[in-house]
Amino acid sequence: MKFEVTILGSSSATPIFNRNPTAQVVNVNDKLYLIDCAEGTQQQMLRFDIKASRIDHIFISHLHGDHYLGLVGLLSSMHLNGRKKVMKIFGPAPLKEIIEIQLKYSETTLNYPLEYIFTNAAQKELIFENQDMCVESIPLDHRISCTGFLIKQKKRLRKLIKERIEELQIPVPYYSAIKKGHDYTSADGTVYKNDTLTTSPADPKSYAYVSDTKYNESYFKQIGKASLLYHEATFMHDMLDRANQTHHTTALQAANVALATGADKLVIGHFSARYKTLIELLEEAQSIFPKTELAIEGRTFVISE
Amino acid sequence: MKFEVTILGSSSATPIFNRNPTAQVVNVNDKLYLIDCAEGTQQQMLRFDIKASRIDHIFISHLHGDHYLGLVGLLSSMHLNGRKKVMKIFGPAPLKEIIEIQLKYSETTLNYPLEYIFTNAAQKELIFENQDMCVESIPLDHRISCTGFLIKQKKRLRKLIKERIEELQIPVPYYSAIKKGHDYTSADGTVYKNDTLTTSPADPKSYAYVSDTKYNESYFKQIGKASLLYHEATFMHDMLDRANQTHHTTALQAANVALATGADKLVIGHFSARYKTLIELLEEAQSIFPKTELAIEGRTFVISE
Repeated sequence: MKFEVTILGSSSATPIFNRNPTAQVVNVNDKLYLIDCAEGTQQQMLRFDIKASRIDHIFISHLHGDHYLGLVGLLSSMHLNGRKKVMKIFGPAPLKEIIEIQLKYSETTLNYPLEYIFTNAAQKELIFENQDMCVESIPLDHRISCTGFLIKQKKRLRKLIKERIEELQIPVPYYSAIKKGHDYTSADGTVYKNDTLTTSPADPKSYAYVSDTKYNESYFKQIGKASLLYHEATFMHDMLDRANQTHHTTALQAANVALATGADKLVIGHFSARYKTLIELLEEAQSIFPKTELAIEGRTFVISE
Repeated sequence: MKFEVTILGSSSATPIFNRNPTAQVVNVNDKLYLIDCAEGTQQQMLRFDIKASRIDHIFISHLHGDHYLGLVGLLSSMHLNGRKKVMKIFGPAPLKEIIEIQLKYSETTLNYPLEYIFTNAAQKELIFENQDMCVESIPLDHRISCTGFLIKQKKRLRKLIKERIEELQIPVPYYSAIKKGHDYTSADGTVYKNDTLTTSPADPKSYAYVSDTKYNESYFKQIGKASLLYHEATFMHDMLDRANQTHHTTALQAANVALATGADKLVIGHFSARYKTLIELLEEAQSIFPKTELAIEGRTFVISE
């Protein structure tokens, strides 16, 4: 099942030329989920050919402008482009007030409904679930209420061994039960154990999105062992004091989170505008966690195919 | 005196690839004034090397998102980049509420003051004046309260004829009065007429910014004969019904405004995303007003040097 993340923005608070602030699109089984929506996100979607009409769920980590200022523009463009489907918005409660006041003064009545699901930065919560995956909000340690998001694939059905099924001439109506792990009893009473008829599906994968936060072990257990960990890395470690003061993370600390939680792979982003090149940040993280990559705009990270 | 306009965005409601929504920078005597500030304006300023720190005045025509959604991001970046100087914001009164609610929830206290000057869409008003120029707000005919802006150079002092001044050995303290048009009486009582000592300065130039509006003769007299007229031209004239319905203008109508008001030159912008190329809009306007150009991002129109 397709599970991948495309980076739309990788800059922290202020944009720099060719680096937009934070936004990402997660594709799970060909459904698109937008995570954070900084100023310029709709322009980035045009640039990377991501169809806004395919997005039905938007997750906002917190209310610093570099994570949500593109939202009203995106919602307005969807309206002008004829959207009718409900849009679900997950984020801090005041987001509703911020959106509504702007719709009010522009005298805009969207021709599609918005449904708000407010996040709680005090505890981990299951905020969304469908047949493919579930999303949990993860409390982070930032200057204002902020959550990360943990997206976990659902455990998939077992896979039928086609040759064996055909050989035994098992009728189709039994397939569903066998995929769920049941044994099969044939007409003559012979019992065929499930593990002779099926193979295990791939382990469910997970994507942990750790937005703005100070390095704090409190969230390590909550994100668990991620197949892909995105972690902010605003500064190099020589600016640790500044990172602590502004409740951000250094590249070395981000790598430490990956190491401590057993992530398969790390992507770092949210780079301070002071870094004109990013190789130093990458090398610092790779010095202790080699499987690190940079969140470069337009780059897609495949978690499962 | 330098007087020029640089286009930062030329798209209407929704951006399209490589066309951002509306924003412009006006340079008057090396001071920068921002007119409208759509989403992505700060990124466009980076792209075209326009220093945000040089802007002390921002004019917002109306509260449709494609004219102001970049404002909070720009103000936040100025804050993070250490701005201390007051920023004057001219626009509809609710803009204050929209900005303040977003600063409140991001728990941001700007380290520079904002000063609001509310525009009145009911009548023409002088809203700003300094030694170089003045700005008047012009009521337009849009779906919500909307004003254009008329920027007029101040009448300049007369220019001394250097050779004549030296020949007559006129003392320096008299220069100021002579530049203002006074005659000069020498020690022996001879009166030298001002027009033998000075030449006329260039006529003051004006820039009329006609943001979103339906074609309506009500504003013709108020913008007067502009040296440069920027007029929205959202549609081609074959979409006149749609233009009327949405309170926008066609390219042909924009050219008619230029013709009727006696503008020296016309720039059309605010193009609908339906037009992938702009040559048709240009040709339609040029068919009746040849001195028309397109508002292309990054392009600068010189009004005086």
